Amino acid sequence: MDVSRLAKALRRVLDADAVITDEQELRTYACDGLTSHAAVPGLAVLPHDTEQVAAVVRLCDAEGIPFVARGSGTGLSGGALPRTDGVLIVTSRMRRVLSVDVDNREATVEPGVVNLAVTRAASGAGFYYAPDPSSQQICSIGGNVAENSGGAHCLKYGFTVNHVLGLEIVTPRGDIAHLDARAPGYDLIGAFVGSEGTLGIATKVTVRLLRVPSKVVTLLAAFDTVDAAGECVSSVIAGGVLPAAMEIMDAMSIAAAEGAVACGYPAGAGAVLIVEVDGPDAEVDAQRAAVEGLARDAGAFEIRAAADAAQRAAIWKGRKSAFAAVGVLSPDYIVQDGVVPRSALPQVLRGIQRLSRDSGIRVANVFHAGDGNLHPLVLYDSAVEGETQRAEEVSGAILDECLANGGSITGEHGVGVDKSRYMPKMFSETDLDTMQLLRCAFDPRGICNPGKVFPTPRLCGEAPGKRRGVHPEVASGRAELF
Amino acid sequence: MDVSRLAKALRRVLDADAVITDEQELRTYACDGLTSHAAVPGLAVLPHDTEQVAAVVRLCDAEGIPFVARGSGTGLSGGALPRTDGVLIVTSRMRRVLSVDVDNREATVEPGVVNLAVTRAASGAGFYYAPDPSSQQICSIGGNVAENSGGAHCLKYGFTVNHVLGLEIVTPRGDIAHLDARAPGYDLIGAFVGSEGTLGIATKVTVRLLRVPSKVVTLLAAFDTVDAAGECVSSVIAGGVLPAAMEIMDAMSIAAAEGAVACGYPAGAGAVLIVEVDGPDAEVDAQRAAVEGLARDAGAFEIRAAADAAQRAAIWKGRKSAFAAVGVLSPDYIVQDGVVPRSALPQVLRGIQRLSRDSGIRVANVFHAGDGNLHPLVLYDSAVEGETQRAEEVSGAILDECLANGGSITGEHGVGVDKSRYMPKMFSETDLDTMQLLRCAFDPRGICNPGKVFPTPRLCGEAPGKRRGVHPEVASGRAELF
Repeated sequence: MDVSRLAKALRRVLDADAVITDEQELRTYACDGLTSHAAVPGLAVLPHDTEQVAAVVRLCDAEGIPFVARGSGTGLSGGALPRTDGVLIVTSRMRRVLSVDVDNREATVEPGVVNLAVTRAASGAGFYYAPDPSSQQICSIGGNVAENSGGAHCLKYGFTVNHVLGLEIVTPRGDIAHLDARAPGYDLIGAFVGSEGTLGIATKVTVRLLRVPSKVVTLLAAFDTVDAAGECVSSVIAGGVLPAAMEIMDAMSIAAAEGAVACGYPAGAGAVLIVEVDGPDAEVDAQRAAVEGLARDAGAFEIRAAADAAQRAAIWKGRKSAFAAVGVLSPDYIVQDGVVPRSALPQVLRGIQRLSRDSGIRVANVFHAGDGNLHPLVLYDSAVEGETQRAEEVSGAILDECLANGGSITGEHGVGVDKSRYMPKMFSETDLDTMQLLRCAFDPRGICNPGKVFPTPRLCGEAPGKRRGVHPEVASGRAELF
Repeated sequence: MDVSRLAKALRRVLDADAVITDEQELRTYACDGLTSHAAVPGLAVLPHDTEQVAAVVRLCDAEGIPFVARGSGTGLSGGALPRTDGVLIVTSRMRRVLSVDVDNREATVEPGVVNLAVTRAASGAGFYYAPDPSSQQICSIGGNVAENSGGAHCLKYGFTVNHVLGLEIVTPRGDIAHLDARAPGYDLIGAFVGSEGTLGIATKVTVRLLRVPSKVVTLLAAFDTVDAAGECVSSVIAGGVLPAAMEIMDAMSIAAAEGAVACGYPAGAGAVLIVEVDGPDAEVDAQRAAVEGLARDAGAFEIRAAADAAQRAAIWKGRKSAFAAVGVLSPDYIVQDGVVPRSALPQVLRGIQRLSRDSGIRVANVFHAGDGNLHPLVLYDSAVEGETQRAEEVSGAILDECLANGGSITGEHGVGVDKSRYMPKMFSETDLDTMQLLRCAFDPRGICNPGKVFPTPRLCGEAPGKRRGVHPEVASGRAELF
């Protein structure tokens, strides 16, 4: 890629200050939230509308130049890791809330709009946008779409994919297409959301708005052990209550949060369970009573209830700060993201404990307990010889533990560059090939965020030809068939 | 296609009685629920497992023979219309419920399993399968997957796509692949569900089970006019109540239902509104009170409430029989299926009334009012010269009315052969091309249920080549760019 030639071409279709070639400036985009992987992009652009995005992509398509889209750069799996030989398309200038339609309960925004800004735009009318990743004050809707972001409340409300009603996308060939979850034909929204930027760039996102629940109660229950807290989670679900959120923090993550933000959780707790129930008043009152009873039955030694916003914020303070707070305990840490069936939680947690003991690497556990989504924080000190590697081994072994128990390698942080090597552990070659049929159809030149998600790129040009005509399995049986 | 040669080959991979070549037997498969389109298949097969389906598809792939899958044949858009030059793959021998996993709230079934059989398999444990098309006593899960079937309760619970967690499919090339909504990578379930048999054949379906709600109350409110009933629907939604179902029947469909099943709805009603609320006791009681109050405010002159199963069945009897009951009023009728934004309901209903008046063709209206899904029943007598054509014109004009009001050409019956010509009214060429990228990637030979959904098949072999390299829009601007 000839950067100066490309920059000149790009400056003809973008604003003059929207094409970044300065090395120092480009360095600020070298990584996303997964700082262990970094690459300075060949060039970065800041388009301000769909047409500009399409123009950039068409240029890349014509020249065979790889491109990567980036929102706020808060992703945790390296999905927005740039290519040194490519263009980074940054959506931060596409920040308009285009419409808020309360009658039809939807809003349309540009991809650079920050998650919480959607709620802010709708809150005057009594509505909000449900998916709430911890980074919601800074992460972008476009990034949420790419990663199918979740959050503490996805137990009840689902992931980004459950809230996207329509998308305008620029395909890897530079076409502008519209996907609509409510229209006939193929619903490609499910495939596009969570495709980690490999099927194109969302340029407009229509999301569902939900009515702010009339009542919200947040409960904090303190237990002696994580097992007891986990048992409480199981009994709540078995009891037919669907809380908005159920979060567990173990002793080490509580200690970190206390150290960082003095959240004042009950002293001596081996685990805290945060349960939030929301909805109509009568339902919330009934659910609150049920959860309190079940928590006591499971051995909670203290239960606090918060009914107003300030009290709720106090309870959430510890949980929301937990990732960053771990910095109090350790100079370096890996945020792992795995999923296990709820019923396998105790077993997997014991497995993690064993891994920690055997390796001498500390692991703090914070998790979306309701949907079995673990976020083990693997603590290490990169200044200590060999510790980085041991931490990475423990982190990987945790995923193996999840897989061995019928779980998944990621709940909400995505595959990115970080976990593509694990994909063959979850999928057969045919399953991966079937996904890549879509990839190749959309991106035959393999220029749209290459190297992410899939361990081995399918050779798009070759594959269909190779498989066309006589299927190998038919070929072998054909003489017999006819 | 040489039928006898193909039959011989198929008998080598299937049971002897599973290959049907007898003209009389084949005639029974000539159409699905859309009887206006019929074609006797060249040959029909009744595989009993995935391997047999794959073997049939591989044979078709090797020979370039079109194939169409068929479940129970209750579809209303001709999605299972056979090809005279092709193979019909009937799933009725694939009727095993493979697992019911109450702990993880899922069941895995074969595609020929009847919708209601899933609920029956789970009901002992207190669970059920939510999507409930009117044909649920006979329609198959495989057909539900193909058509993304809804039902009266999809207002609260969503469509089939919201309840499918995993799929085993046989691709149009004969590969056996697994799609998992909960795993990373591309989630192709959204695209596959509702693809109307054009992306392959589902051979195992893992569905979500829901806990049977602890309380269900069904309300029947009688109004003077459809407008008043519609106003009640809007105020219920605006009031923050989400009923499980909200159905409106107009005077003509009430008359039909009375004639057919003597459902005993309040005399003199210009419209009835059925509202069902379900959930925890406290919530249901609160919702029931709210709905009754809003119905009275909207002018309901009689409100009945059913709290036990027998009373509920009595209320639903009229609604559930409505389609068939119209036969009492007219020798022939078309069941139309369109969607409009809830707020546009009154306007569209007035438009339908005008179309009826102008054409002299009677139209009875039954609709899932909560989600704006209309099922106008267009009545005609094929024995009367020209009436069939006029009915079809009215039916088509109703769709135009839906589109003009920001709606869709189908809510739950699918596009099939019947509505593919309307697709360009909803989608740009680029949008349709983007969908067909997937179609071509999965089915490059165009043999998997060809002629359905898309008005103009994309030339799979040519298109990517034509578009490869220099994009036309780049080509035109390229001299300027460099």
